[in-house]
Amino acid sequence: MFQSFAVLSSPETGKARVADLRATFDALGVDAVLVPRADEFQGEYVPASATRLAWVSGFTGSAGAALVTREAAYIFVDGRYKTQVRAQSDMTVFTPVDLIETPPSHWIAENGRDGMRIGVDPWLHTMGEVARMEKAASKVGAQIVLLAANPIDAIWHDRPAEPRGKVAIQGHSHAGRLASDKIASIAGTIGNNKASAFVMTDPSSVAWTFNIRGSDVPHTPHPLARAVLRSEGLPTLFIHSEKLGIEEKAYLAQLTDLAEPETFDAALQALAGTGEAVMIDPALTPHAIAAQLTSGGAKLVEAEDPARLARAIKNETELKGAAHAHHVDGAAMVAFLAWLDAQQPGSVDEITVATRLEAVRSETGRKHQLPLKDVSFETISGAGPNGAIIHYRVNEQTNRKLGAGELFLIDSGGQYVSGTTDITRTVAIGSPTEEMRRFFTLVLKGMIAISTARFPAGTRGSELDPLARIALWKAGADFGHGTGHGVGSYLSVHEGPQSISRRGQQTLEPGMILSNEPGYYREGAFGIRIENLIVVTPPQTIEGGDKEMMGFDTLTLCPIDRRLVETSLLAADELAWLDAYHQRVAQEITPLLDNDATRAWMKAATAPLV
Amino acid sequence: MFQSFAVLSSPETGKARVADLRATFDALGVDAVLVPRADEFQGEYVPASATRLAWVSGFTGSAGAALVTREAAYIFVDGRYKTQVRAQSDMTVFTPVDLIETPPSHWIAENGRDGMRIGVDPWLHTMGEVARMEKAASKVGAQIVLLAANPIDAIWHDRPAEPRGKVAIQGHSHAGRLASDKIASIAGTIGNNKASAFVMTDPSSVAWTFNIRGSDVPHTPHPLARAVLRSEGLPTLFIHSEKLGIEEKAYLAQLTDLAEPETFDAALQALAGTGEAVMIDPALTPHAIAAQLTSGGAKLVEAEDPARLARAIKNETELKGAAHAHHVDGAAMVAFLAWLDAQQPGSVDEITVATRLEAVRSETGRKHQLPLKDVSFETISGAGPNGAIIHYRVNEQTNRKLGAGELFLIDSGGQYVSGTTDITRTVAIGSPTEEMRRFFTLVLKGMIAISTARFPAGTRGSELDPLARIALWKAGADFGHGTGHGVGSYLSVHEGPQSISRRGQQTLEPGMILSNEPGYYREGAFGIRIENLIVVTPPQTIEGGDKEMMGFDTLTLCPIDRRLVETSLLAADELAWLDAYHQRVAQEITPLLDNDATRAWMKAATAPLV
Repeated sequence: MFQSFAVLSSPETGKARVADLRATFDALGVDAVLVPRADEFQGEYVPASATRLAWVSGFTGSAGAALVTREAAYIFVDGRYKTQVRAQSDMTVFTPVDLIETPPSHWIAENGRDGMRIGVDPWLHTMGEVARMEKAASKVGAQIVLLAANPIDAIWHDRPAEPRGKVAIQGHSHAGRLASDKIASIAGTIGNNKASAFVMTDPSSVAWTFNIRGSDVPHTPHPLARAVLRSEGLPTLFIHSEKLGIEEKAYLAQLTDLAEPETFDAALQALAGTGEAVMIDPALTPHAIAAQLTSGGAKLVEAEDPARLARAIKNETELKGAAHAHHVDGAAMVAFLAWLDAQQPGSVDEITVATRLEAVRSETGRKHQLPLKDVSFETISGAGPNGAIIHYRVNEQTNRKLGAGELFLIDSGGQYVSGTTDITRTVAIGSPTEEMRRFFTLVLKGMIAISTARFPAGTRGSELDPLARIALWKAGADFGHGTGHGVGSYLSVHEGPQSISRRGQQTLEPGMILSNEPGYYREGAFGIRIENLIVVTPPQTIEGGDKEMMGFDTLTLCPIDRRLVETSLLAADELAWLDAYHQRVAQEITPLLDNDATRAWMKAATAPLV
Repeated sequence: MFQSFAVLSSPETGKARVADLRATFDALGVDAVLVPRADEFQGEYVPASATRLAWVSGFTGSAGAALVTREAAYIFVDGRYKTQVRAQSDMTVFTPVDLIETPPSHWIAENGRDGMRIGVDPWLHTMGEVARMEKAASKVGAQIVLLAANPIDAIWHDRPAEPRGKVAIQGHSHAGRLASDKIASIAGTIGNNKASAFVMTDPSSVAWTFNIRGSDVPHTPHPLARAVLRSEGLPTLFIHSEKLGIEEKAYLAQLTDLAEPETFDAALQALAGTGEAVMIDPALTPHAIAAQLTSGGAKLVEAEDPARLARAIKNETELKGAAHAHHVDGAAMVAFLAWLDAQQPGSVDEITVATRLEAVRSETGRKHQLPLKDVSFETISGAGPNGAIIHYRVNEQTNRKLGAGELFLIDSGGQYVSGTTDITRTVAIGSPTEEMRRFFTLVLKGMIAISTARFPAGTRGSELDPLARIALWKAGADFGHGTGHGVGSYLSVHEGPQSISRRGQQTLEPGMILSNEPGYYREGAFGIRIENLIVVTPPQTIEGGDKEMMGFDTLTLCPIDRRLVETSLLAADELAWLDAYHQRVAQEITPLLDNDATRAWMKAATAPLV
């Protein structure tokens, strides 16, 4: 299993650990310490050695921070974790603060006192974050103290070792573009920015650039590593040699100098000492790196990480690999959904079902020689009211039977060497109510609107987002998340810069993979989400028109629950899309099914509605 | 008549005038002079005394600039004026440059030479514009020279006098809110921004704040005037006393100190001399004002003109007035369209038709005691291929008969004391082609999508813009302008900050008036645009929903040409909207019609389609 459903809750440890942390304040010369969720690599998942926030507070959510002062302790969490934090953290020690309304910088501006010294670890915050905190502190006469070492690490005596996950080469048959070519292209960008080097701090950028994958953190196969790339000459890759086998070392030695991470600071100082211009991405780079460069005499050139947009635009090989991964994943989903439909309502629970899905994915991958390397995130398996919790993680306490008359929402994905998948289906357990069918169909309308959209070159994701919502808006409903996020190629399931959301300022470019996942959540009652992955298609002529238009191809192949579709709410072209989609699913996935019952289920599940 | 159709073209004068301008360079110590279209008030319309660009170049478009160097002369125009500039300016003297791709600041960065001195009048450019030009110049070693006096004015011997248009009080029955209340509210904003004064430079802000209207420029009834408002104490209004009658003077004296514009510079210096913080809007304020304030010792606080958003959100009285204006204007449009339909194809031309429409508006206004004060812009009256020219202004040379089998597009509006109107209708002359009907219906789908949209509080105009385009996008078509602009209350027909467009970052607020005008333009063949004005409605509960939604009410009441609607392309709810709209038009406008033939036409034009 790549995931566990254990109750992660240890509020009893918070009190003593906060006291231990406070005991370090005098020596550090601070009145408070900020403990963020992020690690030194600013990734979505962090290794066990970097779960400092969970260690000090008990809170295991994927975003947040704790601020421990001499008198009080605050835990910053967003709306989706309001309930969870109360179960995981000791509420007699921590006061919850809304992370979105009052992030730490706002808290400082509002509550900081004259002379207050707030310690932060400059490796755990980007340049931008530290700048915001310093600005806030200066307003109230407080001070941000950049700590030389992390104060949690000093008191966390049984802290796990940093990971040494093995690295694998991502072969040309999956990567589709040589690392040497990517490195040369980045060198050109560095030169165009009138810099001599770029400090690459995003592990996914390192993985993409050097065509390697790692196993340091759960669910995202990038190695925790950094690199310095140059406008001229070989890059340097800073990675623990223990992570590299003989073959990987030989491969990488052709492309780059290899160096241990312990030499990174010295390398920064040497780089700065040349006095040359160094390019960094202020949105990704830890403050500590920027500070070392500037104090050493480098001139910083701020620019977007050149690997970021480049890796978002998938090449032909990656797109073929994604399609292949989605065929295998689709076959697994179909086998799973057929099994689920055969269960009596009230007979299985969320954990059983999520466990079964992972097992079916593993088995299907083995059978089709595309092994499941990991789940791409922890499965969201929510029955009834649990489906309305957008980032629900089931555990043994919250586990719930899938009861008759309920909706069941399952959002999951797999990491395969040829691609990353992410799919949500909402299915009826027993007989759904009219209201459930109505809202399911309104969500489906939004999902079809994105699937069938055409748009001119230059269109940003933010411009398409409302198409997924307008049917819900007209019904007085909405959903509190973006319509779609970027997805990596056997990398992070949440990848920038592309998105379909209010904040999606990136223009959509052919080859980008995005999710298309509108939803609707009725608190305490039910949750609905329907998610396919889609690929942006190049501008094409449309008959009768005079302007080429881009659009989307759908990658995900799995039936959408027909029992939840209220056909009278769909327009003719929407119904036609759904029937054509189901026909395609049946044609492409049925040959991969090896079980008569599953094939029979598929036939019924994809039968035309009109 | 509030408009003329004369050919505005005098390319023969450019050569000598450019030579006269160059003759001033030595004394000014410059190598080039920039002549923008804008006047000292940065308005859309400028008085005759400020048509400096037209005087030097012959070009009369509503946006652009000329850059005259010692060796060459460039004229910057955007796409819509590419053809016009060739007719109006001497192409042996001026080289056209694309204003959007290469605005003057880009031209300077690309073509400026080391040591080149470029003269600009700091009264004709905002702070932001001068900053951009200075940045560009510094890159190439060139210099922006801020001129003490305008060099065109020195050589333009028969320059018209500056206008002294009479001011009228905008009574409470139309303004709906006391000027004293608006002034007090602005005073509060100034205080909140920690400033002691705000320099108001936008004449529409002055008109709105003091509840006055002017007659200095065509089509926009604001007086050319500026004001200094204070966090405490009376404002000062700088306006020529000749513009004020006894009554207006007495009214204004209750609200403000009155001062002649000639004393404005001295007042700025006095204000600066106090060393206090002065608030200005960098997007609106001429560089000359900011420069005088800073050089005098003031601390500038940059903030949005507080009258800008406030006047965009219409109060109940203004909304009632707008509805009243649209009833009278609708009656005029109906009488006009009925007349037009009675003409034989090929028997009337664009000028005759535009003249007739203005006459009908005047007559209808008189009859209903809401006189037409002005047209709100020059009527766009385009038959056949002329309809495809988005900002077409008919003149005696381009004038064209409305021929059989053509589409005719007419975009027009009226200024009434209770409100400003703006309406476009596209009508079939004789029998339309299938293609015309298809694209008319696709444009109509976009227009209905905006009319029927519902959206949550916090939605920006940019989020709704794609709803107006998606039907066209799916057909491989688009239109090259925003979907909607803000509209003033008996003020400018183009009003910020609200818009429905890619750039529309302002959230939509209840009471804002916007246009809803998607289109489609087939170059050399036909143009289609359908435009209604709409008002943002407050958040309201929708049955079955759980989130309040805003939406739009339609102000414009005039039939949409049924002969151009291909009903098979409309969904049931779109057809229902159109029939309901027509029913409302018939109910509300028919009582205002005094002619049997017009009433008969109305009945046929609003008959249900289903």
